[in-house]
Amino acid sequence: MTVIMTTPPLESLDTPALVLDETRMLRNIERLRRHIGSLGVSVRPHLKTAKSVEVARQLLTDGHGPATVSTLKEAEVFAAAGVGDVLYAVGISPAKLPRVLALRKRGCDVSVVLDSLEQARAVAEASRESGDPIPVLIEIDCDGHRSGMRAGDPLILDIARVLTSGGAELRGVMTHAGESYGAVGAEALAAFAERERAAVVSVAETLRASGFPCRVVSMGSTPTAHFARDLGGVTEVRAGVHVFFDLVMEGIGVCSRDDIALSVLTTVIGHQPTRGWIIVDAGWMALSRDRGTASQAVDQGYGVVCDADGAGFEDLIVVSANQEHGIVALRPGSRATLPDLPVGTRLRILPNHACATAAQFDGYQVLRAGTDTPLAYWPRIRGW
Amino acid sequence: MTVIMTTPPLESLDTPALVLDETRMLRNIERLRRHIGSLGVSVRPHLKTAKSVEVARQLLTDGHGPATVSTLKEAEVFAAAGVGDVLYAVGISPAKLPRVLALRKRGCDVSVVLDSLEQARAVAEASRESGDPIPVLIEIDCDGHRSGMRAGDPLILDIARVLTSGGAELRGVMTHAGESYGAVGAEALAAFAERERAAVVSVAETLRASGFPCRVVSMGSTPTAHFARDLGGVTEVRAGVHVFFDLVMEGIGVCSRDDIALSVLTTVIGHQPTRGWIIVDAGWMALSRDRGTASQAVDQGYGVVCDADGAGFEDLIVVSANQEHGIVALRPGSRATLPDLPVGTRLRILPNHACATAAQFDGYQVLRAGTDTPLAYWPRIRGW
Repeated sequence: MTVIMTTPPLESLDTPALVLDETRMLRNIERLRRHIGSLGVSVRPHLKTAKSVEVARQLLTDGHGPATVSTLKEAEVFAAAGVGDVLYAVGISPAKLPRVLALRKRGCDVSVVLDSLEQARAVAEASRESGDPIPVLIEIDCDGHRSGMRAGDPLILDIARVLTSGGAELRGVMTHAGESYGAVGAEALAAFAERERAAVVSVAETLRASGFPCRVVSMGSTPTAHFARDLGGVTEVRAGVHVFFDLVMEGIGVCSRDDIALSVLTTVIGHQPTRGWIIVDAGWMALSRDRGTASQAVDQGYGVVCDADGAGFEDLIVVSANQEHGIVALRPGSRATLPDLPVGTRLRILPNHACATAAQFDGYQVLRAGTDTPLAYWPRIRGW
Repeated sequence: MTVIMTTPPLESLDTPALVLDETRMLRNIERLRRHIGSLGVSVRPHLKTAKSVEVARQLLTDGHGPATVSTLKEAEVFAAAGVGDVLYAVGISPAKLPRVLALRKRGCDVSVVLDSLEQARAVAEASRESGDPIPVLIEIDCDGHRSGMRAGDPLILDIARVLTSGGAELRGVMTHAGESYGAVGAEALAAFAERERAAVVSVAETLRASGFPCRVVSMGSTPTAHFARDLGGVTEVRAGVHVFFDLVMEGIGVCSRDDIALSVLTTVIGHQPTRGWIIVDAGWMALSRDRGTASQAVDQGYGVVCDADGAGFEDLIVVSANQEHGIVALRPGSRATLPDLPVGTRLRILPNHACATAAQFDGYQVLRAGTDTPLAYWPRIRGW
């Protein structure tokens, strides 16, 4: 392998390209698995970040599940790859039930989430008609972020009744502390995790006290999963972006810069010296339009600029992005010196939001860990 | 065809889906062609918005060119589909020249843009080595938006010298008034168009006065193309987003709401009645993270909400977006009544930025104009 090893593996790639550092990814996976394991619970990873069968094999317990997905397309691809236990964690629309049933018929234990009587009636009806009791988690809203029912809402018991008497399987409850992305630091995130836990566990207790089954009590977001101190009453924790991490997660203190496993490889294509700009061939088509750090203490523009080996430059970020042009400059107020980066120089950009940046690409150029093949290509799942 | 016509064609689609109204698209194409034609110049459409061979056939003169692209992948796909004259309008990096030469060898007249001596030397060297004089447009910066040399910069003549004496073909000059997206109204946009014209024509005159060839004088952006009143000295006008239009273009007065040909079909999946929220299955994965109207007089959130037939609701927009959840609500301050949209209701979202939203999908569901086949699928070009 000498020939390959003397040429750094990224040199041969056209830019822009999506680079995944497998060593960092494996460290991130292990960190969360150990933490949640130490609290006596297992992880149900959310595959929406990576959307990759190869990543799922490393992320999932024994490579086959349990897993969380954000689209039925993901469920279909992962099921075909042998994942046998999938939670589709977006409120079910009745028109999607035939695809859920088709997947279940092929042997994949797909469960769905809902938060209304109309959805419960549709799931119950589809369960009766198919003779297959579709498993359901009732979605609980723990922080006003988006979907779900408030703990204490009497409608929850009505939904439980419609499901259990109607032919569906009431499997449990789930919640997602989406607002935790706005909290910063260990104490605030631990408090969020406790609020998330308390909300979903209280509903589980109410259901059981009323004679309903509630085998699964599912919570999670990457921030709360890493800072939870007590998971009493919870049976599983979901997290997604921890597999790669990103600048938003660094900004709220969930990871360090060095944990970020994903970057966009780009090439310098020009300069505007009087304005202090370096133009690169990664615009928003490669980086995404996600500006998740704009509301944080440190705004990273469209991403932090590193050299081709991943070492950062002081204060150098992508300050602006057009479709195929990124404008690299020192962050406002910086006293650092603009580095000399001639046309043709390769750089790597760390993303604000790994889920959004990865979605701009069809697959990963993977810097493999501990193998003689330094570079692999792992395709991503697209569409719905 | 009675059976198909009694069932509206969009009913059968899974959501989210990208819907293209061909009738509106054809009207948009004709409008610009007529305006630029009346000024005695031809259009070199930018295919980066649609990235579709089927759209290109309608957009290009006789279906084959001239065309503008933003990636070499587009150039390769369009060349294979018979487009014979392609301007790759992103500053060339030396590592991309082998792909340019390979395309030219297959008979496609690919030209490149540059704005530095180092790029000019690389293009000249590749031209000499291949025996194929690569055609070059020198990029001019007319408004400080991103790349290009200022008119009057003496380096322009040095670049011309390096190209012509080095074996490349100096074909002309080009500019793009990217800042025109921030102007509003016919007068301001006409002034931008004149500034764009004056900058690029003055450089063309300087080059010719110094004995250099300058056959092509290319300018354009969708806003300036529609409001230019005089194109004296210009040989072609480029525009991209006019093919579909979007809310950003409506916001600056380039199009009306009714001209927008692109929308995202979505389904209601839940409600938060106490907050006035309707949850739909189009999040940022479908709509993109583009918030182009955020800096305009009317902020449209992540898009304007219409019914399944495309008729708008008063003040109803997507106020927030997660990966697969869109939160629909009345715009802040509205006194309108939230419409009753039960779970399962189909809606269509008009995008802030057509280029960005379309890029989230692998293809278009096309409502065909004047055909017995009401719905077609046109794939999009992905990657670089």
